[in-house]
Amino acid sequence: MKIAILPGDGIGPEVTREAVAVLECLALPGLTLFEGDVGGIAYKRHGHPLPDETLDMARAADAILFGAVGDPTCDALERHLRPEQAILGLRKHLGLFANLRPARVFAGLEHLSPLRADIAASLDMLIVRELTGDVYFGAKGRRVSETGEHEGWDSMSYCDSEVRRIAHVAFRAAAAGGHLLTSVDKANVLETSQLWRDVVIEVAADYPAVELDHMYVDNAAMQVVSHPDRFGVVLTGNLFGDILSDLASAAVGSIGLLPSASLGERETAFGTFGLYEPIHGSAPDIAGQGKANPMATILSAAMMLRHSFGRDAEAGRIENAVSAALADGVLGGDLGGSHGTAAIGEAVRARL
Amino acid sequence: MKIAILPGDGIGPEVTREAVAVLECLALPGLTLFEGDVGGIAYKRHGHPLPDETLDMARAADAILFGAVGDPTCDALERHLRPEQAILGLRKHLGLFANLRPARVFAGLEHLSPLRADIAASLDMLIVRELTGDVYFGAKGRRVSETGEHEGWDSMSYCDSEVRRIAHVAFRAAAAGGHLLTSVDKANVLETSQLWRDVVIEVAADYPAVELDHMYVDNAAMQVVSHPDRFGVVLTGNLFGDILSDLASAAVGSIGLLPSASLGERETAFGTFGLYEPIHGSAPDIAGQGKANPMATILSAAMMLRHSFGRDAEAGRIENAVSAALADGVLGGDLGGSHGTAAIGEAVRARL
Ligand SMILES: CC(C)[C@H](C(=O)O)[C@@H](O)C(=O)O
Ligand SMILES: CC(C)[C@H](C(=O)O)[C@@H](O)C(=O)O
Repeated sequence: MKIAILPGDGIGPEVTREAVAVLECLALPGLTLFEGDVGGIAYKRHGHPLPDETLDMARAADAILFGAVGDPTCDALERHLRPEQAILGLRKHLGLFANLRPARVFAGLEHLSPLRADIAASLDMLIVRELTGDVYFGAKGRRVSETGEHEGWDSMSYCDSEVRRIAHVAFRAAAAGGHLLTSVDKANVLETSQLWRDVVIEVAADYPAVELDHMYVDNAAMQVVSHPDRFGVVLTGNLFGDILSDLASAAVGSIGLLPSASLGERETAFGTFGLYEPIHGSAPDIAGQGKANPMATILSAAMMLRHSFGRDAEAGRIENAVSAALADGVLGGDLGGSHGTAAIGEAVRARL
Repeated sequence: MKIAILPGDGIGPEVTREAVAVLECLALPGLTLFEGDVGGIAYKRHGHPLPDETLDMARAADAILFGAVGDPTCDALERHLRPEQAILGLRKHLGLFANLRPARVFAGLEHLSPLRADIAASLDMLIVRELTGDVYFGAKGRRVSETGEHEGWDSMSYCDSEVRRIAHVAFRAAAAGGHLLTSVDKANVLETSQLWRDVVIEVAADYPAVELDHMYVDNAAMQVVSHPDRFGVVLTGNLFGDILSDLASAAVGSIGLLPSASLGERETAFGTFGLYEPIHGSAPDIAGQGKANPMATILSAAMMLRHSFGRDAEAGRIENAVSAALADGVLGGDLGGSHGTAAIGEAVRARL
């Protein structure tokens, strides 16, 4: 079981270190860890945010634990050299098409949500975001328009098979869970969305127990804050998923607690190949100070054990340890507490 | 002063009627009203959601008061015949490039917001959305991809002059107001956004007193719910503006109160040509029952007086009358009250 550890920039190394310590604490037989450079640090050391060695290491692994990328000193670089390109490159090169982002309010932490407590308490959704298509990876550039104007352009598209495979991921999750699936698009304006909707309706035939609903993205953004209880699993494309999943995280109010999984098509000997990362960023303002909350990364490691290594029991142990620590008042500064990175990591391990 | 009244579908006619009565109550000299069909009703009567006669009437007017379009019995029609195409067509044909959407919580109505009261109280922003460009109006269709797959596609683009003119609208609003302008894009992924950002930075040179900030759309969606106080004027493109302005409305919690203006480039003898509409939809479930809240449409008529007819004093009178009615407990069902459409209209007129 080979795991590539890519700590990245800012608080990435600190939070990744604690998650690795949690994995090691489980003493799973046959676990090997490799570490690689990614993001701004990789640009500084190797001239590229996603060096070939890192990509090769990621390819050779069964799963990837990713910290965060982003470094303000790289802001002036051309887009293809900026830290974020590392995560876009990993998604594309490794075919990580299925992004799973659970968003729920932890018991006892409702007060951290910007939503009213009664509304916050009902927030418990899984966002399934397509991650390798849409306007993210289409052709783009600058050109002179028909009217002689300087123009910036991007191409948005989805083909049947791209929609079908992500739809199956979402329908399976809905079938296993609350049976409610909301597909979000903008089919009243976009042809890409109309195709999306057509294919989702086709796939629905395979899942008679799932209740499928379609919602325009503008309405979905409204419902996430006003009626989050309307959602179970949310299926959406790359661009809308970017916005809605961050919105749902903000509605939870504790992004230091939210993990994510980005799964590929490849099956390894142990499970599905995937990349796991906290949804927070590199937080350069608090980097290196031991203040960052590692719980989101630790919970990402739990998702890794579940999806990439078929270790549901160990995943559950980690999740329970985190919940227990939270219940015992082990709270990072982001949650209104005063526990530092190492203390939180230790507290979780002590409860394993 | 010619106003084209386009009531449209669902609750559109009911709420428009009350707004027209408010305008008539002001007894402005030289006001002429024309009424036209638009949306599902226009499709049923004339075979098209935006008949030529309606478009001609709109063109000949100095301003348009628009109710709402949307009719579930039209859902199965081809996209170009669906009711929503009427509003898209009006925007494009009339060059209504600047959508202004104020979102603020009315005093005493904080409890309607899904946000915590302390956060809701700080929500007071103006969203300036570009309305005639972006992926909305680019080429689109179906095709067979390079790999032989069936694909849906849309083209996203902005040219310099499109960004420049909407940026000026937003900078002027910021210069006149709180001096804080946030431009929202996805420049880390989209070339269209990078051009957007470049041009906004250029335009900023003309407004030294305005503090300009750039934010990625995913982060902006988070901040709207967690830190709305960070925003004054928000400038953004058509697609992101669609999502963020609806999100801000949901955060306010009373979409029955929120007006909008869509301004064109054309100056008439009285002001700027524009279309004014409530941000709520046609609400077919309560149509014809006299339950709809006409305040958003009445406030849209106030925006019309201000922007298209230079009648700031009368606009202020309408806005004050609405505030006074709210303060006196004249609340529609959407606000937890029991006042019907006609009663609310009357209450506002009584306070003019
Ligand atoms: C960094 C950025 C390119 C990325 C995205 O837009 O996908 C991020 O926002 C995310 O959601 O992982
Ligand atoms: C009806 C629809 C096409 C429209 C849009 O997306 O612009 C609406 O959502 C709006 O914001 O006015």
